[in-house]
Amino acid sequence: MNVIPPPAERVRLAHLDAETYREWVASGRATAIIPAGAFEQHGPHLPLGTDAILSTTIAEAVGRRTGAKVAEPLAYGYKSQQKSGGGNHLPGTISLDAAALVTITRCLVRDFLSQGMQHLVILNGHYENYQFLYEGVDLALADLGLDSDSDRCVLLLSYWDFVSEQTLGTVYPDGFPGWDIEHGGVLETSLMLHLRPELVDMGRAVSHPPAELPRFDRLPVVPGRTPATGCLSAPDGSDAAKGELLFDQVVADLSEEISAELGLFALPVKEVLTTP
Amino acid sequence: MNVIPPPAERVRLAHLDAETYREWVASGRATAIIPAGAFEQHGPHLPLGTDAILSTTIAEAVGRRTGAKVAEPLAYGYKSQQKSGGGNHLPGTISLDAAALVTITRCLVRDFLSQGMQHLVILNGHYENYQFLYEGVDLALADLGLDSDSDRCVLLLSYWDFVSEQTLGTVYPDGFPGWDIEHGGVLETSLMLHLRPELVDMGRAVSHPPAELPRFDRLPVVPGRTPATGCLSAPDGSDAAKGELLFDQVVADLSEEISAELGLFALPVKEVLTTP
Amino acid sequence: MNVIPPPAERVRLAHLDAETYREWVASGRATAIIPAGAFEQHGPHLPLGTDAILSTTIAEAVGRRTGAKVAEPLAYGYKSQQKSGGGNHLPGTISLDAAALVTITRCLVRDFLSQGMQHLVILNGHYENYQFLYEGVDLALADLGLDSDSDRCVLLLSYWDFVSEQTLGTVYPDGFPGWDIEHGGVLETSLMLHLRPELVDMGRAVSHPPAELPRFDRLPVVPGRTPATGCLSAPDGSDAAKGELLFDQVVADLSEEISAELGLFALPVKEVLTTP
Amino acid sequence: MNVIPPPAERVRLAHLDAETYREWVASGRATAIIPAGAFEQHGPHLPLGTDAILSTTIAEAVGRRTGAKVAEPLAYGYKSQQKSGGGNHLPGTISLDAAALVTITRCLVRDFLSQGMQHLVILNGHYENYQFLYEGVDLALADLGLDSDSDRCVLLLSYWDFVSEQTLGTVYPDGFPGWDIEHGGVLETSLMLHLRPELVDMGRAVSHPPAELPRFDRLPVVPGRTPATGCLSAPDGSDAAKGELLFDQVVADLSEEISAELGLFALPVKEVLTTP
Amino acid sequence: MNVIPPPAERVRLAHLDAETYREWVASGRATAIIPAGAFEQHGPHLPLGTDAILSTTIAEAVGRRTGAKVAEPLAYGYKSQQKSGGGNHLPGTISLDAAALVTITRCLVRDFLSQGMQHLVILNGHYENYQFLYEGVDLALADLGLDSDSDRCVLLLSYWDFVSEQTLGTVYPDGFPGWDIEHGGVLETSLMLHLRPELVDMGRAVSHPPAELPRFDRLPVVPGRTPATGCLSAPDGSDAAKGELLFDQVVADLSEEISAELGLFALPVKEVLTTP
Amino acid sequence: MNVIPPPAERVRLAHLDAETYREWVASGRATAIIPAGAFEQHGPHLPLGTDAILSTTIAEAVGRRTGAKVAEPLAYGYKSQQKSGGGNHLPGTISLDAAALVTITRCLVRDFLSQGMQHLVILNGHYENYQFLYEGVDLALADLGLDSDSDRCVLLLSYWDFVSEQTLGTVYPDGFPGWDIEHGGVLETSLMLHLRPELVDMGRAVSHPPAELPRFDRLPVVPGRTPATGCLSAPDGSDAAKGELLFDQVVADLSEEISAELGLFALPVKEVLTTP
Repeated sequence: MNVIPPPAERVRLAHLDAETYREWVASGRATAIIPAGAFEQHGPHLPLGTDAILSTTIAEAVGRRTGAKVAEPLAYGYKSQQKSGGGNHLPGTISLDAAALVTITRCLVRDFLSQGMQHLVILNGHYENYQFLYEGVDLALADLGLDSDSDRCVLLLSYWDFVSEQTLGTVYPDGFPGWDIEHGGVLETSLMLHLRPELVDMGRAVSHPPAELPRFDRLPVVPGRTPATGCLSAPDGSDAAKGELLFDQVVADLSEEISAELGLFALPVKEVLTTP
Repeated sequence: MNVIPPPAERVRLAHLDAETYREWVASGRATAIIPAGAFEQHGPHLPLGTDAILSTTIAEAVGRRTGAKVAEPLAYGYKSQQKSGGGNHLPGTISLDAAALVTITRCLVRDFLSQGMQHLVILNGHYENYQFLYEGVDLALADLGLDSDSDRCVLLLSYWDFVSEQTLGTVYPDGFPGWDIEHGGVLETSLMLHLRPELVDMGRAVSHPPAELPRFDRLPVVPGRTPATGCLSAPDGSDAAKGELLFDQVVADLSEEISAELGLFALPVKEVLTTP
Repeated sequence: MNVIPPPAERVRLAHLDAETYREWVASGRATAIIPAGAFEQHGPHLPLGTDAILSTTIAEAVGRRTGAKVAEPLAYGYKSQQKSGGGNHLPGTISLDAAALVTITRCLVRDFLSQGMQHLVILNGHYENYQFLYEGVDLALADLGLDSDSDRCVLLLSYWDFVSEQTLGTVYPDGFPGWDIEHGGVLETSLMLHLRPELVDMGRAVSHPPAELPRFDRLPVVPGRTPATGCLSAPDGSDAAKGELLFDQVVADLSEEISAELGLFALPVKEVLTTP
Repeated sequence: MNVIPPPAERVRLAHLDAETYREWVASGRATAIIPAGAFEQHGPHLPLGTDAILSTTIAEAVGRRTGAKVAEPLAYGYKSQQKSGGGNHLPGTISLDAAALVTITRCLVRDFLSQGMQHLVILNGHYENYQFLYEGVDLALADLGLDSDSDRCVLLLSYWDFVSEQTLGTVYPDGFPGWDIEHGGVLETSLMLHLRPELVDMGRAVSHPPAELPRFDRLPVVPGRTPATGCLSAPDGSDAAKGELLFDQVVADLSEEISAELGLFALPVKEVLTTP
Repeated sequence: MNVIPPPAERVRLAHLDAETYREWVASGRATAIIPAGAFEQHGPHLPLGTDAILSTTIAEAVGRRTGAKVAEPLAYGYKSQQKSGGGNHLPGTISLDAAALVTITRCLVRDFLSQGMQHLVILNGHYENYQFLYEGVDLALADLGLDSDSDRCVLLLSYWDFVSEQTLGTVYPDGFPGWDIEHGGVLETSLMLHLRPELVDMGRAVSHPPAELPRFDRLPVVPGRTPATGCLSAPDGSDAAKGELLFDQVVADLSEEISAELGLFALPVKEVLTTP
Repeated sequence: MNVIPPPAERVRLAHLDAETYREWVASGRATAIIPAGAFEQHGPHLPLGTDAILSTTIAEAVGRRTGAKVAEPLAYGYKSQQKSGGGNHLPGTISLDAAALVTITRCLVRDFLSQGMQHLVILNGHYENYQFLYEGVDLALADLGLDSDSDRCVLLLSYWDFVSEQTLGTVYPDGFPGWDIEHGGVLETSLMLHLRPELVDMGRAVSHPPAELPRFDRLPVVPGRTPATGCLSAPDGSDAAKGELLFDQVVADLSEEISAELGLFALPVKEVLTTP
């Protein structure tokens, strides 16, 4: 059984008490990572919470390496779009309007920064969220009157943008099909097999060619354009080893780039804490 | 180590795959519970995530007894108010504006019900949330055009309203001080000691008389009116046994009343599944 | 016939001319009370405007004792909820969405305070309003950049929270049933019989046991759970003497506590002005 | 002292009980008038509430003649503009943002019409309100899905548009200066002298030439362009007789045109009820 | 063929490059004119874009005379109202809700002024827009914290308010019917015949008496009250000479008044640049 | 000089009269294209209006080939982001908040479709707009209650997604740097040199290496990360021939794909009308 670390070493902000939180923020170096996900169908073999599970798990690992802590994730995201997520009409997809996601983000950024948090990192795991998270951050900074002279800031990123060319080559030996149709595909499936295998049922995975979608979005969607599985590419060839490679490389690069940008101290990989 | 149940028996919706979700909803009897919490200081001995931890844990137990499943919690809530939570100015409290909480709730209710979910239960664990959750539900029902003739519906409740008089007598042998100042006090502390003892540090708990607050809200708040701990009453006398009593009684009553209202099948307590 | 007092002694702000208003505000001690009510069914014996009539009348009496003046009331309130007002589906209930009530409150607080008003008191007479009034105040203070160091402030309260234990004992000799079901009951009926008897028709009042409502809100409401009268408890035993007792005690306590909080000068009861 | 009429004959909706309201609406002919005003400086001789006082008093008179009833007035209005009200910067002017006024109007129209009210009349007494009232009505009708085939409808009007040419000639023997600068001038002052003389202090009235304002709005306003009194034209020559003439003619024409449009029964002037 | 002027002499801001823009703004005297129009039916003889075409063309001419430059027009406007535009139900009318027009205006004013633009002029060509443009300006100034002490400002105007009495006498020799029913009538038709004759088809113009509309707005509209052409008065007697007279007089007066207000240098008419 | 086509053959909707518009829509086959752009710095050699100029010109050409007509463009867009447009802090960039762009789009889609327009195409020319246009379309379809069974629909696309691999090879002989840094680069510059050479000043163009930006967005932006020109890649090698190739290929493919999707009749390239 895990030994529970003392509050100051816990990686989830929600597990800190108020006093520890206050002391930590008072250091002037505090960084919080807000994972963003979605509640979205990911085919018959992956759980509905995949996006938030992945962004939260990556955020925790980055937090352990960099000294950042992880705020509670945004477990619901913007509407699934057919060209990146199969479409919002599919059962199991419960989404937010743009206004909701923008406003939540605005409130969180405003409150964290106005309480003395030095930096925020919003770590996105659902393609469709990005622009709305951006708007929320932008409005919060205007509320706070922060401009470029400030050394307080927010970083916004999607974790797959940190997958290296080399990793891509290994994970997709037959050529990378593009992030746009990586929904329920090899990346997400392999990561889940590495991180939460009990929530993946490869026996239900279905092989099919990648979705071929037009270069426009049509609304209302033509449901038949999404493969019957709800995945835009099949998880063929996914395995935990690929997941581990993806996870380790992304966490390492993310930790390094965030640390360099924000002046944090990134630990060498092997010294990282492993408790919750 | 726990044996992972097959998807259809999992209690968290986010752990289901889309196919299982679809089949479950198609039964025409599907009920989802959305726990609502907050990210709010709870004194030096309880974690910031207390409200969401409690509402989610209670929701899961109710789900296991009734066949309902638990959606991802609302981990951020409405602003802490001095008379019920100490005030939104306290470090560690990160809150949503009313508009944000109303809109999230509206989107979730709308999407769940329009996908065929028969019933929703919003299980609140943060006093200040209630009216904004209510408004979100009301707007969603108007969006959907649902009226009293429908057999689809939403229940909204706060879990402490299900604590019985008898339980109160046991938990507060010297008299119940009122829910309004039960913030970081005996109820929440005892429940956490029962459910998540590793996140409670009774060594940091501070004894002090209950807060005496005026009968009005003053804004901006006068910070000195909140006890220095941030708790409105001290956790003196909290213990895991009281937590267990509270938890078991509330879960039992909640399960029974929800089941009776919605026509669900509540299991006898001892047969309840115990896996995630 | 009443003698009309000169402008400076009038209690309703709307009856002042702009010059008198300007001079009064320039004193640096000006306090305005905004009564909040609703347009809501109150059974067959009370008028639809009961909530605003009561909060406005109480505000005027408090104003006469404290030197505060009374702004025009919010005559429409948040939706009637089944557990506190019978439900918004009942004929005669015309309500505002949360966003409307929040925004009005925000505008009024912002404008009054930015014009030099020193204090505002929002005196609520409709249970369901409270949280939305609170949010409006909070947003306005953020707009103005006012924080705890300011000696300008807003008090928010519901008048029934100032009914004393002793008064309750007299008004409800058989035990107080709780504010939650005091809708169209003894408190409101007695106050109206004292203050506006011409608008009460006790001949239409109906006796029935108190409503027994579940511990959750169900939406859409089940109409049959609200007693046929629309009242949550019957007005049996209401009379003008109880109304006078309630009124005098609440006005005295309110005046005293507000004055103490804001440094106003509360007049002894008997010296109070009695003109409009 | 006035004899209080029985509920069904009262002209203020807020004075009806729910049962009487329900019966009245069930007639299928019910019409409610919502007066709209403002809380706005009107110079040193008129009270801040002038606009709402006038629109409400006119509405009540029209109600008595036509069988319509009067809902509680909108006592706060859109921002005072320099070219029609002197400007929102003047002390004593407390205003709503557009969004607030639009949303209130939308809620009221929606609720009244969805409860079976056949017609609504919004009777405006503050120039700046008009377009925002219009938008609120338009949005409410879209919410309800009402179109031109419906025989339920809303009329929106400003009362001064019903002043006849002949009346104008009598009230302004030296020529009518235009509605745009009729703020605190002869029309409003005369009406108030007729209707609420105790609230007018002609001893404080100041004579000055009409405001000469540019053909554009400049924002922020140049305060010096508004006459020092806050009136855009002086009340010279105002008297109660002119007020009576204006009032009687406007009420008669309004009653007639509304009745003709809505199929109501307008009483001959002399038979009109005179009680509250 | 026109010689294209160098960037600094172009009148359309959208035709400047960023460097020229920056230098121009840095002068501390930069004024931008934002034309506002609509996409609205204007009868069978005028194009749908008439309002934006007219306001943009007038803005360009004013810009050439005053040194101001013209921002891209607001090509869509607030809903057409029956009493000023025939009604929003008519084919060819595509409109914005109030919130949309207010928000666009707020954003543009905020961004232009926060980038160092000294003055903005919003030149309106669609009657229904005015109040929503005003609200957008007012909110933007509040966002920026600009008050009357600032020498940065916004002018808002409708171009027809600058038609002189003398011009009116020439254009309407039989008497001016009022701006309210000048929709698709002599003013707009003559201006278009002067400025964009290729877009006018007088062969399709229909003669009919002016619309006679009630003094109230009725919603939903009674379609039959709008003349079948969609015009509120017929274009009888329109010609390019009247258009030229109107255009030259309005442009001259607008240029002079704006220049005097803002301290710009208005060129004598004949020296004005004529290239795009 | 161009011969003006009769109304029915004009490509801009704003140039049609209401009668022609009505007849065209009544055909049941009407398609409108709404170009979306921005008002954004594009370096020292391109005009601020580049995005709207390009999307509008492409839309007109597509309209001439397909029989669709072009609505007035959205001339202002969402905020420029550093990684795709250099950043919103740069002079000459005037932007809309997300809410503004979403709401405009929602209104236009709602009005066009509710008037009988069969199809809408939103043709985007500003990278940052896409998600907000999407949300506007989605909300409008929900307002209208349109679902997948309808044969009325909206297509949303960005024109650069229709540049073929072959064209890319010719335009970027040294390798395509990616759309993300195509801001003020070879694509936009070549298109403008082909379509509006009088608005391009290649003498001011500056050669510099492509921007190297981090994989995250940092807000507030670090201004020094954007090249001094404001372009993310230099326009080296741009010429009108490349612009012609890009334009012709994109217009041809867009016309073909839209026509196939919507069942329109695409004309062979050489028969296309060339008048405004």
